Amino acid sequence: MTQIKEFIHGGDYNPEQWLDHPEIIAKDFTYFKKAHINTITIGIFSWAKLELSEGEYNFGWLDEVFDRAEQQDMNVILATPSGARPRWVAEKYPEVLRVDENGQRALFGERHNHCYTSPAYRQKVQNIDRKLAERYGKRKSLILWHVSNEFGGQCYCDLCQAAFRKWVQAKYQTLENLNKAYWATFWSHTYTSWDQVVAPSPRGDENLLGLNLDWHRFVSEQTIDFFEAEAQVLREVTPNIKITTNFMGGNPDDEHVFFDLDYQKFAQHVDVISWDSYPSWRSDAKTTAQLAMNTAVMNDVMRSYKHDNYMIMESTPSQVNWHPVNRPKAPGMHRMGVLQEVSHGSNAINYFQLHQSRGSSEMYHGAVIGHDLRDDTRIFKEVTQVGENLMALQPVLDTTAQQAKVAIVYDYDNMWALSDVRNYAGETIKYWRTIQEQYQYFWEHDIPVEFISTQDDLSTYQLVIDPMHFLMTTDFADKLNAYVAQGGTLVGSYISGQVDERYLAYLGGWLKPLHEVYGMEPIETDTLYPTQSVAVADTTQQVQAHDYATIMELDTAQALAHYTSDWYADSPAVTVNKFGKGAAYYVGARFDQAYLATFYKKIVTDLQLEPASPIEKMTKAIHVNIREDNNQAYFFVQNFADKATTITITTPVIDILTGEEIAVGNHQMAAYDGLVLVKKN
Amino acid sequence: MTQIKEFIHGGDYNPEQWLDHPEIIAKDFTYFKKAHINTITIGIFSWAKLELSEGEYNFGWLDEVFDRAEQQDMNVILATPSGARPRWVAEKYPEVLRVDENGQRALFGERHNHCYTSPAYRQKVQNIDRKLAERYGKRKSLILWHVSNEFGGQCYCDLCQAAFRKWVQAKYQTLENLNKAYWATFWSHTYTSWDQVVAPSPRGDENLLGLNLDWHRFVSEQTIDFFEAEAQVLREVTPNIKITTNFMGGNPDDEHVFFDLDYQKFAQHVDVISWDSYPSWRSDAKTTAQLAMNTAVMNDVMRSYKHDNYMIMESTPSQVNWHPVNRPKAPGMHRMGVLQEVSHGSNAINYFQLHQSRGSSEMYHGAVIGHDLRDDTRIFKEVTQVGENLMALQPVLDTTAQQAKVAIVYDYDNMWALSDVRNYAGETIKYWRTIQEQYQYFWEHDIPVEFISTQDDLSTYQLVIDPMHFLMTTDFADKLNAYVAQGGTLVGSYISGQVDERYLAYLGGWLKPLHEVYGMEPIETDTLYPTQSVAVADTTQQVQAHDYATIMELDTAQALAHYTSDWYADSPAVTVNKFGKGAAYYVGARFDQAYLATFYKKIVTDLQLEPASPIEKMTKAIHVNIREDNNQAYFFVQNFADKATTITITTPVIDILTGEEIAVGNHQMAAYDGLVLVKKN
Amino acid sequence: MTQIKEFIHGGDYNPEQWLDHPEIIAKDFTYFKKAHINTITIGIFSWAKLELSEGEYNFGWLDEVFDRAEQQDMNVILATPSGARPRWVAEKYPEVLRVDENGQRALFGERHNHCYTSPAYRQKVQNIDRKLAERYGKRKSLILWHVSNEFGGQCYCDLCQAAFRKWVQAKYQTLENLNKAYWATFWSHTYTSWDQVVAPSPRGDENLLGLNLDWHRFVSEQTIDFFEAEAQVLREVTPNIKITTNFMGGNPDDEHVFFDLDYQKFAQHVDVISWDSYPSWRSDAKTTAQLAMNTAVMNDVMRSYKHDNYMIMESTPSQVNWHPVNRPKAPGMHRMGVLQEVSHGSNAINYFQLHQSRGSSEMYHGAVIGHDLRDDTRIFKEVTQVGENLMALQPVLDTTAQQAKVAIVYDYDNMWALSDVRNYAGETIKYWRTIQEQYQYFWEHDIPVEFISTQDDLSTYQLVIDPMHFLMTTDFADKLNAYVAQGGTLVGSYISGQVDERYLAYLGGWLKPLHEVYGMEPIETDTLYPTQSVAVADTTQQVQAHDYATIMELDTAQALAHYTSDWYADSPAVTVNKFGKGAAYYVGARFDQAYLATFYKKIVTDLQLEPASPIEKMTKAIHVNIREDNNQAYFFVQNFADKATTITITTPVIDILTGEEIAVGNHQMAAYDGLVLVKKN
Repeated sequence: MTQIKEFIHGGDYNPEQWLDHPEIIAKDFTYFKKAHINTITIGIFSWAKLELSEGEYNFGWLDEVFDRAEQQDMNVILATPSGARPRWVAEKYPEVLRVDENGQRALFGERHNHCYTSPAYRQKVQNIDRKLAERYGKRKSLILWHVSNEFGGQCYCDLCQAAFRKWVQAKYQTLENLNKAYWATFWSHTYTSWDQVVAPSPRGDENLLGLNLDWHRFVSEQTIDFFEAEAQVLREVTPNIKITTNFMGGNPDDEHVFFDLDYQKFAQHVDVISWDSYPSWRSDAKTTAQLAMNTAVMNDVMRSYKHDNYMIMESTPSQVNWHPVNRPKAPGMHRMGVLQEVSHGSNAINYFQLHQSRGSSEMYHGAVIGHDLRDDTRIFKEVTQVGENLMALQPVLDTTAQQAKVAIVYDYDNMWALSDVRNYAGETIKYWRTIQEQYQYFWEHDIPVEFISTQDDLSTYQLVIDPMHFLMTTDFADKLNAYVAQGGTLVGSYISGQVDERYLAYLGGWLKPLHEVYGMEPIETDTLYPTQSVAVADTTQQVQAHDYATIMELDTAQALAHYTSDWYADSPAVTVNKFGKGAAYYVGARFDQAYLATFYKKIVTDLQLEPASPIEKMTKAIHVNIREDNNQAYFFVQNFADKATTITITTPVIDILTGEEIAVGNHQMAAYDGLVLVKKN
Repeated sequence: MTQIKEFIHGGDYNPEQWLDHPEIIAKDFTYFKKAHINTITIGIFSWAKLELSEGEYNFGWLDEVFDRAEQQDMNVILATPSGARPRWVAEKYPEVLRVDENGQRALFGERHNHCYTSPAYRQKVQNIDRKLAERYGKRKSLILWHVSNEFGGQCYCDLCQAAFRKWVQAKYQTLENLNKAYWATFWSHTYTSWDQVVAPSPRGDENLLGLNLDWHRFVSEQTIDFFEAEAQVLREVTPNIKITTNFMGGNPDDEHVFFDLDYQKFAQHVDVISWDSYPSWRSDAKTTAQLAMNTAVMNDVMRSYKHDNYMIMESTPSQVNWHPVNRPKAPGMHRMGVLQEVSHGSNAINYFQLHQSRGSSEMYHGAVIGHDLRDDTRIFKEVTQVGENLMALQPVLDTTAQQAKVAIVYDYDNMWALSDVRNYAGETIKYWRTIQEQYQYFWEHDIPVEFISTQDDLSTYQLVIDPMHFLMTTDFADKLNAYVAQGGTLVGSYISGQVDERYLAYLGGWLKPLHEVYGMEPIETDTLYPTQSVAVADTTQQVQAHDYATIMELDTAQALAHYTSDWYADSPAVTVNKFGKGAAYYVGARFDQAYLATFYKKIVTDLQLEPASPIEKMTKAIHVNIREDNNQAYFFVQNFADKATTITITTPVIDILTGEEIAVGNHQMAAYDGLVLVKKN
Repeated sequence: MTQIKEFIHGGDYNPEQWLDHPEIIAKDFTYFKKAHINTITIGIFSWAKLELSEGEYNFGWLDEVFDRAEQQDMNVILATPSGARPRWVAEKYPEVLRVDENGQRALFGERHNHCYTSPAYRQKVQNIDRKLAERYGKRKSLILWHVSNEFGGQCYCDLCQAAFRKWVQAKYQTLENLNKAYWATFWSHTYTSWDQVVAPSPRGDENLLGLNLDWHRFVSEQTIDFFEAEAQVLREVTPNIKITTNFMGGNPDDEHVFFDLDYQKFAQHVDVISWDSYPSWRSDAKTTAQLAMNTAVMNDVMRSYKHDNYMIMESTPSQVNWHPVNRPKAPGMHRMGVLQEVSHGSNAINYFQLHQSRGSSEMYHGAVIGHDLRDDTRIFKEVTQVGENLMALQPVLDTTAQQAKVAIVYDYDNMWALSDVRNYAGETIKYWRTIQEQYQYFWEHDIPVEFISTQDDLSTYQLVIDPMHFLMTTDFADKLNAYVAQGGTLVGSYISGQVDERYLAYLGGWLKPLHEVYGMEPIETDTLYPTQSVAVADTTQQVQAHDYATIMELDTAQALAHYTSDWYADSPAVTVNKFGKGAAYYVGARFDQAYLATFYKKIVTDLQLEPASPIEKMTKAIHVNIREDNNQAYFFVQNFADKATTITITTPVIDILTGEEIAVGNHQMAAYDGLVLVKKN
């Protein structure tokens, strides 16, 4: 990631809202120093204050903010303002406003809702970006470009439709190819002209699966293209300043990876990954430890995009204002979350927002400085403590999270395809939950995991888990085969290898290479109602499987478990196949964690995947993550239980947060507490 | 129904999707022969491949399909392609696309969504229909026209509005009549010009109950008129080929009769009834036996339209792809369903689809030939067994289901009126469930039932059940009176006879003839909350009634049960009235099956309605249906339990499916098994 | 309120629907006399029959109705017909039809849906109003104008947008003020021209909190302005006839005060308050006694608007037709509801409807005369009994409900602000339920309460309860301080005093005067998930609080209860502060009734608020309300239990409904029964 000399502790800051209150701005900077805030992110949504009318610029206030920051040796992350636009832009160039799927153009308002195709918008954005880059590019405080904000959403205007049409034509070249890919003979939907290509919509067609999938791809690519239009100006003017855009994490309910845009592709276009982390600590849906696993997943996802450290670009010290229930974090939780993020590879903790906006929709989103303007609040003190901790972590700065030997594959084409699948049961698809369920055993045993794309190199991993890979290319199937042949261990599951990249069924069952590597053929899939289950037994236990049950014909594979109920009782439910130097497991039914733990325990033991640790833990709520370089390993030991918990120190260590040595023996950790240990030399 | 020489075993087939895979088409026909598929339904949604651009025809591929079919002596059902249109039709004649209730015209896409008024569409459809009729009308394989596909839905375009306006004017003649019928003085909605007549919509008015009802009638009639426009061409060119269109059955949740179109009227326009049967076998909502009763209802409904045998035009051998959960049938269930359909009068079992489409929205709908292209799958084998069974049933072909002595009345005007009623409780109207609840006792005792319209002759039935007949004409009330006077037995219920055909309340309480025949006057209706109940007792039991409780003043009627709770305790809840040579029962409250069983048992006993049978059954999950002609009765004995069940054979019989004799005594039937028995001579 | 010489017993009557049935109209009037109906409300929705086409009037039928009424000495309430319009008005002036938030203009239909800005509509309405006033203004029977019907809803047409823009400009004068009030710098929403002001909508912006709030205010004021346009004509032509419009009560689920329009402001424009009362007696959600408390709240709300007697303008004798379940009242319930309404200050009981309309959407709404046209039904008899009771209540006519010493503050700006708040949890805001929960103890102890606005004089009350006053002006905070300083007792609660009238946060925590009066500072608010709770204890009990928990720093206040769980255990949850001559309580968490009862019991005891009564009651289902003048107190004793209940008479009384004396001792009241007692001289 971008080279920095200290952990970043900062956040979004909008002094342009307080220009008539200079005393507040002055006090803010005093408070920043007090809380060890060393970075401000500015310029997000500031366009209206930077360009008052077309070509009428107003940089004075921003100059002063830079001055102030530099006076106290702070870093600046400067945002391009394209996330929202001044009213005059929309008045003069109505094409910048999006058109919805029913063909209605939006009025001015909200944010993150510009047409990403509009040439006029790109031009106006590039112009203000260039002005910013030219004016501030040489500022010593400037460490990073923050392009726009939380890209997402779709536009159906004529410009987007034309761009989509062009994209489709470039992809398929001939109408014959197009008609075959979209299986358009079905229902007489044969295209006879490129002009007939229209985005899917409830007004028109939502049943051409290939078209739906291509629209997802186009929206994603066109958004990246818009980002690139901004980045191009910045690279030209400030070639040495790195560029990011803030990705989004999961929603509070299911912590699902972001759906709209292919972040695996987008990640290739940014210099450093940054993202906005808003878990729902204290919700009634999950324990803190359960939620900690979800946040661990999301952090690992973000690290995996570039297999490198990353940044938290937004987070709240207390509460958000957009969850169904906006409960503040309890004391210690903020620090707990920060240490977890750092342990997974984050080198930056930024807040939205440093100072609460006095009005409008986010006026009650948590902030370092609230409406009370006080620096003696619980929140302010906890932020200050985090600032101190980040300083104490300085030795960790240039380390990275321990290299994972386990990879879980996920894929955007597959995710989009599964979200549109006309088979099985909509309610029980649960692709991302399935991903998380594969992760759980490893998390509970402190085994590092990466989340990889189909483009990644598999050979660096001892174990590759590839669940529900419904849409799979022949290339990737070949890649899996080669991986196993060369000694890798592969775990696959139900409903894999069904359709190709066009969303056409593979003829002859499923992908032939999968038959080879798994040594069997899935003949039928029984899709159960959510209330139903089927019994499965292996030599040690009987469990209930849900949702999916694959019925297979074994070839070279061996059964590890069998169904013991329903009409396919006695047929195999889980198999393993020796293939080349490796082995491939196929999990035919959806199991609860009880079975998955047994299943993965054996594999983990066989492959010797458990890391060494200077502590012993008696509960899964204690988690150990390692950051390391060639010289030193830093053990982040965290208590995610809501109560004090005992751990056993097995070798003398020093907690670098306190500088104190911790002797061998039992040690009590308070609820939410964290240690960063190095072995005593 | 149409004269055929064997049971039809076939289905929808779309070789136009595989023209670049001639080897697949060739293999399909081999497989058809193997599975005893003797019929293909072709041309559905084929327009784009038949008329490439306006007037540019392409029949070669279809000629070849006919050739292939005839080479192996198969039947062809030829569809008109109006269910979906080529893109060029919509481009050149945008009026063919529907306008929704908010006034927005659809883009091209989907299917079953043409404007049924558009002259341009009718003209283009008639043209291609004529071409098909002229080219294929003399083909020896052609046995039936399949007009369009699953008609339904509504259009609000200007052409439809004008047609509706004309329809309304023709019906009411004067604005005075119109204003009275729609009670338009209410809320100052008085019409002063015919131009003011507009279809109901959320943009305008949804509270003129007479208008809402007329719109249902118009949509139904206009759709039939569109069908007639197609049929007219076919009758002209191929006067000897019979015509059908495929009706739809209930949705998987409630198995409700199709709502959009008055099938009782539509049935008069087709030569043979055919319908698409997609029950949700294996759902978690109902047992197999419970669901079998729902499918029995639907088959009886379809047979009753023309009081004749009918066809299953679509069904799946395994699963569908549009239920909330698409669970495949268990082994034996497909055959079970087929035998039930045949037992109720179906002479054709067709599948959607013979060969799965490789892409698009129905690519995972069950099929005889799947993406695996195999003929050794469980599904293929079960289809083959069904083919064999249908051949063994050849003696049954010219028989019909046993003539019913029990009729249940239902009526589309009433159904539409009840769906719009501004009284009682929307959640508990449940008209069709009430119909099904009346049916249950008869089903459980193997007593045939027909579902009749108000136009049917009542005199052929010993028992007529007429529940919740809220909208009833004076004519039909008179008809009921005459029926009972001449010796019939009538059962009516709560909320009957409230409004006339204009949706105006009958003044003076309810319909006077109902007072006479039931011998009482309903004074009030207590509409209960779903969680509430009222106690009712007769001489033998006390039960709880729900939803509705009618409070009555008896005239000549006698009470059979009384309320025993709430403020109307001690007043009659169920009555009987001797009237002329017959009797009329009135069921004032909504009872569970426990009470209905007692109630109907007495009537069934009195009228001696139970049929003779060569078996005794110990459980209601065993069902016996009879097809017969003057010479022979065929007893279809089926086990709808999910486990093996014992029946007792009381007279020596032969199972014509196996040719084997079954001796008197106990006999074990496997889960889902079926026998077709004739008494041994 | 308007001077009348007897209790009004009447209702909406639409003889224009029956002009072709003169015998029905004649019979109606006979029935009115029989049921002691002394008033008819006519003309609602009659425009189409009064002005057949523009300028073509037709008053003959209305003249006759007046004649008939006067022949039997009845009162007439005459409605202006603007609640619905003839079709010709919409045809000629399409601007009278509303435009929805998505910009689509409605078609003709429904009611209560005219644009309230349209000059054309105002002109046509004023014209017909003037005609009515000129023709009927001198009729001796005319006692009241009923302007339009149930005002409500919103219009987004260009005329309304222009009016809103003008309203906003008049309010803020400069764009600088506007941008500050709407905190428009946030997300670059800075206004640079008044033309940019547009109503909030999902097409544009719904996140400018100040704009959203102003839109509520504008809609409310513009609707009142429309009312005033009508009233102005009536005042000019008939200066001696008082004017009302019928307000609406709560919906059946939550009995929430009407949301769309600021009735506290609207009340200043009418001469007498009238409202439509439709409680859901017999629902399964609440007991009769629970619902009686909700109806008591609503009646007190209506009386409080003008601190005077009021009218029930609509009600049903049996059932409505628009609740989810339309259950009829049980015998006695109608009289029960009427006595309650009179006891709270209603001097008029009117029905919708006197005669059921034969068709259209309200054909099954309850009425005095139903489709059966009978006068011997249960309903007719109960209406007749109510008529007799109202005559017996003649001595009560000029009394008023006993003056309350307790006031609960509620405020429309605050209600609108809370409905849009981006903090806490949407599901648990529950402003109006909180209001009702404060009321409960007082209701159960027969202590009169008024519901006051921030404009009311506080000094007449001993106790002022001001819960959840999130948006509060500095002026009102000062008013509260002055009230307590001068000896008043104040109860406030969580999330008060957060934002000013622009929806901007108060800087420095909350409103400074609140700190003074409550003697403490709220530091944080813990928003709990609905399933969570926090324990609170005082010296006598431990309870669970839900939803909100305020964490405070005490200044001069004393803690009355403390949290005993979560991280803020031991910090104060409820406080009291002596301030000047009075005391201010702050309730920091949301408590169930158990705690509130203890809390308010102490205050009620301290302030000696319990009224004297001639009866003792053993259950809260018995309620006593007092109407009185200087000479006499009338005790309305009602049994809201669903069974007979015993009360103890402690001093000899006379029931003026029967004229009978009731001796000291126990007395059995039937379910739903009511007595109106005076002490025996």
